[in-house]
Amino acid sequence: MSRKSKGCNAERELIHLFWNNDWGAVRVAGSGSIGWPSPDVLASNRLRKLAIECKASRGKYKYLTKEEVSQLREFSSRFGAEPWIGVKFNNKGWFFLNPEDLKETQKHFVVDTCTAKSKGLSFEEVIKGF
Amino acid sequence: MSRKSKGCNAERELIHLFWNNDWGAVRVAGSGSIGWPSPDVLASNRLRKLAIECKASRGKYKYLTKEEVSQLREFSSRFGAEPWIGVKFNNKGWFFLNPEDLKETQKHFVVDTCTAKSKGLSFEEVIKGF
Repeated sequence: MSRKSKGCNAERELIHLFWNNDWGAVRVAGSGSIGWPSPDVLASNRLRKLAIECKASRGKYKYLTKEEVSQLREFSSRFGAEPWIGVKFNNKGWFFLNPEDLKETQKHFVVDTCTAKSKGLSFEEVIKGF
Repeated sequence: MSRKSKGCNAERELIHLFWNNDWGAVRVAGSGSIGWPSPDVLASNRLRKLAIECKASRGKYKYLTKEEVSQLREFSSRFGAEPWIGVKFNNKGWFFLNPEDLKETQKHFVVDTCTAKSKGLSFEEVIKGF
């Protein structure tokens, strides 16, 4: 499966998870193509709005560009949403990280499975607001 | 220009309008393709969330299917957003209607320029909440 279709499948899976747990969620069209910042997924209920940058990884690491993270922050600030990085590691499920909990390298931000487990929230936790 | 590209251009124009007025806005991907209801555009700031079904018309009338309107209502209820029909009539600009202000025919809902002018809000009004 291509990297792109893997990413899209992860986004779709996440959207079903939200709808099946009494939230609404959508995939955002053509991320970035319109010239304004945008996340991959938006999820909301009557109380909260989540802007999510989605990643899927077969390995132990997932890299995000600094641009992706700064766009997520800028979008969330304008939209009034909570910014989250949602990473699905194969066989380990979903982890949701606050952008501030990402490790920063010279060129990227990185999530490893260790950081995801220690600082990330599960899907159940992120929707409950813990 | 095809009907589809006319609709997409209207959506893009609306997104620029929101961003240029201190709101955030996104186009929703593949409306309906994932099996859950979804609007064309989502716009938000820190206080409000708008779910918008977008239409563009060269004539005096614009029709919406009953399915489009019921999906907009269902999505908005789940997402905690205000449901709006945004119609752009050529040379007359944008009008935003509450789904309850649409005229219902046997098979469709319809917006005509007369109803749009009497019951619709302008873009400036809809973002101010009048």
